Amino acid sequence: MASLLFRHRSSPASSLRLLRLLLQRPISSSSASLDVDISHPTYIVWGANTGVGKTLVSAGLAFSVISRSPSSFLYLKPLQTGFPIDSDSRFLVSKITSLFRSASPPFPLLASHHALRASLPAARALPGFNEQSDSTCCFEETKIGGGDGEEVGARLVCKTLYAWNEPISPHLAVEREGMAIGDSDLREMLHRCLAFGGVNDLGKETSVWRVIETAGGVASPGPSGTLQCDLYRPLRFPAVLIGDGRLGGISTTISAYECLKLRGYDVAAIVLVDQGLANEAALLSYLRNRVHVFVLPPIPHDPLDDLKDWFCESGNVFDSLKETLIFAHSKRIERLQDMPRKAGDIFWWPFTQHQLVPLETVTVIDSRCGENFAVHKVCDKLDMIVPQFDACASWWTQGPDATFQIELARDMGYSAARYGHVMFPENVYEPALRCAELLLEGVGEGWASRAYYSDNGSTAVEIALKMAFRKFSFDHGIAVDSDNGIVDRCYDFKVLALSGSYHGDTLGAMEAQAPSSYTSFHQQPWYSGRGLFLDPPMIFISDGVWNLSFPDAFLSHQPKDEKIRFHLRDELFCQTRDCSALAKCYSAYISRQLSQFFDNCPSTYIAALIIEPVVQGAGGMQMIDPLFQRTLVRECRARRIPVIFDEVFTGFWRLGRESAAELLGCSPDVACFAKLMTGGVLPLAVTLTTEAVFEVFKGGSKLMALLHGHSYSAHAMGCTAASKAIQWFKDPCTNINIEPEGRKMKELWDMQLVLQLSSLNGVSRVIAIGTLCAIELRASGSDVGYASLYASSLVQLLRKDGIYMRPLGNVLYLMCGPCTSPDICNQHLRNVYQRISEFQQSSDKGIR
Amino acid sequence: MASLLFRHRSSPASSLRLLRLLLQRPISSSSASLDVDISHPTYIVWGANTGVGKTLVSAGLAFSVISRSPSSFLYLKPLQTGFPIDSDSRFLVSKITSLFRSASPPFPLLASHHALRASLPAARALPGFNEQSDSTCCFEETKIGGGDGEEVGARLVCKTLYAWNEPISPHLAVEREGMAIGDSDLREMLHRCLAFGGVNDLGKETSVWRVIETAGGVASPGPSGTLQCDLYRPLRFPAVLIGDGRLGGISTTISAYECLKLRGYDVAAIVLVDQGLANEAALLSYLRNRVHVFVLPPIPHDPLDDLKDWFCESGNVFDSLKETLIFAHSKRIERLQDMPRKAGDIFWWPFTQHQLVPLETVTVIDSRCGENFAVHKVCDKLDMIVPQFDACASWWTQGPDATFQIELARDMGYSAARYGHVMFPENVYEPALRCAELLLEGVGEGWASRAYYSDNGSTAVEIALKMAFRKFSFDHGIAVDSDNGIVDRCYDFKVLALSGSYHGDTLGAMEAQAPSSYTSFHQQPWYSGRGLFLDPPMIFISDGVWNLSFPDAFLSHQPKDEKIRFHLRDELFCQTRDCSALAKCYSAYISRQLSQFFDNCPSTYIAALIIEPVVQGAGGMQMIDPLFQRTLVRECRARRIPVIFDEVFTGFWRLGRESAAELLGCSPDVACFAKLMTGGVLPLAVTLTTEAVFEVFKGGSKLMALLHGHSYSAHAMGCTAASKAIQWFKDPCTNINIEPEGRKMKELWDMQLVLQLSSLNGVSRVIAIGTLCAIELRASGSDVGYASLYASSLVQLLRKDGIYMRPLGNVLYLMCGPCTSPDICNQHLRNVYQRISEFQQSSDKGIR
Repeated sequence: MASLLFRHRSSPASSLRLLRLLLQRPISSSSASLDVDISHPTYIVWGANTGVGKTLVSAGLAFSVISRSPSSFLYLKPLQTGFPIDSDSRFLVSKITSLFRSASPPFPLLASHHALRASLPAARALPGFNEQSDSTCCFEETKIGGGDGEEVGARLVCKTLYAWNEPISPHLAVEREGMAIGDSDLREMLHRCLAFGGVNDLGKETSVWRVIETAGGVASPGPSGTLQCDLYRPLRFPAVLIGDGRLGGISTTISAYECLKLRGYDVAAIVLVDQGLANEAALLSYLRNRVHVFVLPPIPHDPLDDLKDWFCESGNVFDSLKETLIFAHSKRIERLQDMPRKAGDIFWWPFTQHQLVPLETVTVIDSRCGENFAVHKVCDKLDMIVPQFDACASWWTQGPDATFQIELARDMGYSAARYGHVMFPENVYEPALRCAELLLEGVGEGWASRAYYSDNGSTAVEIALKMAFRKFSFDHGIAVDSDNGIVDRCYDFKVLALSGSYHGDTLGAMEAQAPSSYTSFHQQPWYSGRGLFLDPPMIFISDGVWNLSFPDAFLSHQPKDEKIRFHLRDELFCQTRDCSALAKCYSAYISRQLSQFFDNCPSTYIAALIIEPVVQGAGGMQMIDPLFQRTLVRECRARRIPVIFDEVFTGFWRLGRESAAELLGCSPDVACFAKLMTGGVLPLAVTLTTEAVFEVFKGGSKLMALLHGHSYSAHAMGCTAASKAIQWFKDPCTNINIEPEGRKMKELWDMQLVLQLSSLNGVSRVIAIGTLCAIELRASGSDVGYASLYASSLVQLLRKDGIYMRPLGNVLYLMCGPCTSPDICNQHLRNVYQRISEFQQSSDKGIR
Repeated sequence: MASLLFRHRSSPASSLRLLRLLLQRPISSSSASLDVDISHPTYIVWGANTGVGKTLVSAGLAFSVISRSPSSFLYLKPLQTGFPIDSDSRFLVSKITSLFRSASPPFPLLASHHALRASLPAARALPGFNEQSDSTCCFEETKIGGGDGEEVGARLVCKTLYAWNEPISPHLAVEREGMAIGDSDLREMLHRCLAFGGVNDLGKETSVWRVIETAGGVASPGPSGTLQCDLYRPLRFPAVLIGDGRLGGISTTISAYECLKLRGYDVAAIVLVDQGLANEAALLSYLRNRVHVFVLPPIPHDPLDDLKDWFCESGNVFDSLKETLIFAHSKRIERLQDMPRKAGDIFWWPFTQHQLVPLETVTVIDSRCGENFAVHKVCDKLDMIVPQFDACASWWTQGPDATFQIELARDMGYSAARYGHVMFPENVYEPALRCAELLLEGVGEGWASRAYYSDNGSTAVEIALKMAFRKFSFDHGIAVDSDNGIVDRCYDFKVLALSGSYHGDTLGAMEAQAPSSYTSFHQQPWYSGRGLFLDPPMIFISDGVWNLSFPDAFLSHQPKDEKIRFHLRDELFCQTRDCSALAKCYSAYISRQLSQFFDNCPSTYIAALIIEPVVQGAGGMQMIDPLFQRTLVRECRARRIPVIFDEVFTGFWRLGRESAAELLGCSPDVACFAKLMTGGVLPLAVTLTTEAVFEVFKGGSKLMALLHGHSYSAHAMGCTAASKAIQWFKDPCTNINIEPEGRKMKELWDMQLVLQLSSLNGVSRVIAIGTLCAIELRASGSDVGYASLYASSLVQLLRKDGIYMRPLGNVLYLMCGPCTSPDICNQHLRNVYQRISEFQQSSDKGIR
């Protein structure tokens, strides 16, 4: 075996074929889908530091697997520096074949070592290198035992994916030797090698293992400079951490463990080499026995020692390690398979008719990485982890890409460790203060001066209503005893709002929204709908142009020859329209509606206006004519009716500006924010107001104060996340989608494709703005509306394509994060376009 | 200077005096208050690994400080192993005096090195050691320049606090050499040494620096085995991290940095020794330039090199490091001082009359560690960080002690990294499933089968009401079209509830609670109080015994000779009372009230019972007679009225049992949980129900489903925290307060002291149960009730004592976490007892 070193052996035809395949197949730079078969144990080996013995552990584990029964073991070393002098995959083959010879199991072993890509200096150092050849690979294969026939017992396949010559970190090696590799290319190559090493190639009957060994420590950079713990995160294989048994090793091992946890990895085992310091005791105490710790005997110092005795002595440890990893793997698979049934048994999902959810449609989310879920599926009896683009942005909350998610995770750990949660009233702490400052400088810029925190959009709206009502009382002389807040009698307060509005599910928020499926007696017997709800004019794209569509009540009053088709969205948002004839008609329409209302309810007050600026979300992704909303605000101001903007859905770049108020071009007195505010990790809401609103709550008594609060008001983790997200989203340095001056987002959706989509027969309208592209399918009767199941089959197909959609009845939408690259957006949009075209054709043919 | 090594010099009288003081003063094992003066730069030096050059950096920094102007520099090495051969504090003195001599600044230097405690083997290795002497210390002092008089220029005070002989981790050294030290003793010693090294001793005029150098890496264990990053966490000094410039050093440095962040430390600078690998570039990229990174020249390999040239060459780096640390320090202080004003300008605190909050009463919370806030205060022009026990458990949310907080923080980082937030409906992911399983096995055991997640107590109650109303409709034949959820007409639904009840601030929850200060027209014009609110009988301790007190409406019907005084709380909770005459009277009382109600409102339905079992929190910490609540439940069951328990306040061991339902001895149909559920880090709520309630929402249409949800429903971080907290609190291995069988908590409050407290003249009643000890002060007129400011002066005094209270009007309370040790509880209770006695005396004398 010693002679194996770098000598190219003749290799079987099949392997040679594969080798050519690998060399010829171009590596795309797109983020291809990384479906991973996890039916067999697959682990990633990390080191607490460099030189802690990762390769010895990989070798010991491999030997334990393949020497006990005819199994297949794939070992991948994605990044190797110091090559060819250092080659961990060659070391593995060399050691294991040597051990295998000594142990003589009753079956043969076929062991191979490939190096797939090498930098020029690394390739030049290979003995058989030929400057003229385009191949930079080496391949070696050894067979032990068995005849020359097809009989194969155990198989060991070891591969080095990329190799550089100097024994330095890969990112430095790239600088010095070239062979730069993008992160997604590297993952794709790894993914492809994993598939080859999997069951298909190695036979379904034998047990199969796959181990990926990283280079250096957990946070050592890969070739692009991305830390390896981040680089491999989209695959999130369970980890084996090789700890450090030396002085200081408790610390580096714990730090490395926490570094992996902070990327969402599960650590199945920690292994360390005994150095006489009993580091394992401290580790077990720290881990509270939740992770197995394995201790290997000291490694002989003599560099000439072939380690045979050491491996022999370590045999039991490696066997137990193997058993532990098998157990962890099968427990994971069992749990994943069991989850849909369990969920169906004990969850009560919101907005879900459980009777309409068959087990097989329950999505098992193993993790999320940036915009993608990693979903567990069983396909052809194989357990797969499949990425799915979260096209509903998890109820419109999501902002992070993979990089930002990890930044947020670290901040979440920090904030929990520094503050946990601390009481808010009459107190101040950095995250709450910083967040309020950023809110007032950002979405509140120019109008707001106070921040009132709560937990979600619904509570933020309830608070906004209480604020507006008090302001209205004050402005309209509804007498208040300012010492105890007592009002002499009760008044009938209502809101002015729009049809199709939605502000949340708690009663106060419900009362401010128009009657809908959500508000029936059966849903909430206390709902009465305390508002005057106007039908607004809408805008949308259909047949390739922007359209303006008026409500029935307005039609007879509409100005003659009014332009209702536009080629650019900007024309509709242009504020010069404020002086148009249409603006006057809108004014008149609003006045008329108010007069009619007061005629019918003379003792009622309209005490607040509440609208979702620009787009109504839950109402079906409806875009309101911005001119109409501006006119509405103006009319209310004239009547001293406080104006509330519900920006829970629209805020924080959802529509391409930090606030929809900015897009609309006018400010409210009170505004509500939630969802994207924390970047999309946890709930937090805020109600921003002007100082004038705040002032009316001042008085001599606590009873005059706004007595509304939630236990976790301004919780530190939420405020920390929000502070981070607000800054991250608006900074062109961290968010490539932001235009250099920082106030606008690039268009993310390919407008040509959007216009084409709107021209499809099966599509009645499209809205594309900011992170949102909504598509209403042409439907009729019970196929229209919230409870419609019209799009179900389409949605199931798209999920198979890797797009997780959750439609609003017959309205589909794609929603990305503020940082998502337009490439990704349009890749999915093309997919949707394709599926809708097919759907339409099958509908046309009546074969659905 | 070379001769300084271990030779005891004659030392000035003052230093000798101090030495004796340190030796004589006993170190208490109580967790004494750790007020820390942060007026001067104080940093803690951490290493990414052992042997990365911490001491060289401390020395370079010290030299940069004291050689430029007559300053004072305190260097503390709390833990030294390998002593006396290794002594970092001696090294500092030796190097700096030598450098000082060469540099010859125009002012003298007084440098000293103390070792305060040494293990016997370490002491024995000291040259002058005397087996008979009780002193194990060594002290050395050197003066450079200046006369013999009082003139002092620069001062360098270096101290080793504890020293062991073997060069191994302190926890191993303790095992082998003895001298075990408890964590709080160590912190107290450190705290005391810091005070000595502070301005008082070193002169107010000179600039003062303090540096604490840790041993080994960030997570190396201290003498008790506690990791050093955890050990020093209560002090949370800003950190200087010494990184590693070697191969693998990027990884260990980043891991160590994250390990510190996961404990809530701020890292002001990273310093590393150049090893030719440009590790700093990768670090800066990872840090996104948020932390300064300093690179020192390579250290000469020659062990005989005295490093003079190296220090000289490094001078600029150390000067910049110093400037960076000065800047970070002054920025921190400035911000802390500015925070109350800023908060007053832009916050709108809930439940707060801003006009009644002077800036000086605003609490600046720099961090929290377990049950304590770390509060910034300016006292005598000094900036102090002072611990305050969070006696209101931050609105009743708090559970973690310091250990559990760090565990939770790591889990929060992991969960954010693994999941961020993912969409809940029709999906399943581990934290949501695990949490639901634990809820149903725990607080839902024996009755609940479904978990409905939401964001806070108020939303959980709104959901509970919707569930109960639908169940009532179904059970009472209020016809529903099960295909579309349409009810033929509207019905007037009301709840049965108790006076003094409180269920949250959103309108639906408000409607279910009795009219109160929170529900006036001025607070929410839409509140009408949709309930029949009964006055309940109360129980409490006064004059040393438990009392049962009946409402007026009940008095005339009360059984004759009914026992109304009890010596044990358990007597009142005993279920044998269910067969008593009183139980029958309660039944009759309830029936009578219901009949009267239906006589007045014949078309109204009582469609749900909603109660806070055992204790009403916001209503003023009122304990209801459990027999009455059980009777109420029985009466409602008989009428097929669904029963809701609002356990938002009472759940998860708040009252000494996992649920108050368990304490009460009966189960609801629906129950709401929040607050302590996540351990106390972030908002999450759940509504648990029976399968029978779930079943009535099934149907052919989505419109039959419960259409209520919040964007972050079942958010992964909340569910992760809850899963952890539920298990942590109930496990006797992690929570010392849990009785071995795991179902009950020990009594945390000293009952003798509680009874004494209840006998004070100024106290009208006391409630002590589980984590709660509430004390109502005897008051009258406007001094009673929610808006009362009666206790303000008392509360301000207690805050000075280190107890952060937030009373409910004239009701004070102490609330701890489920893991808080009874010692801490009673230490604070004694303090409160003392203050109330004084308060009463001053009231009696009319001098308040």
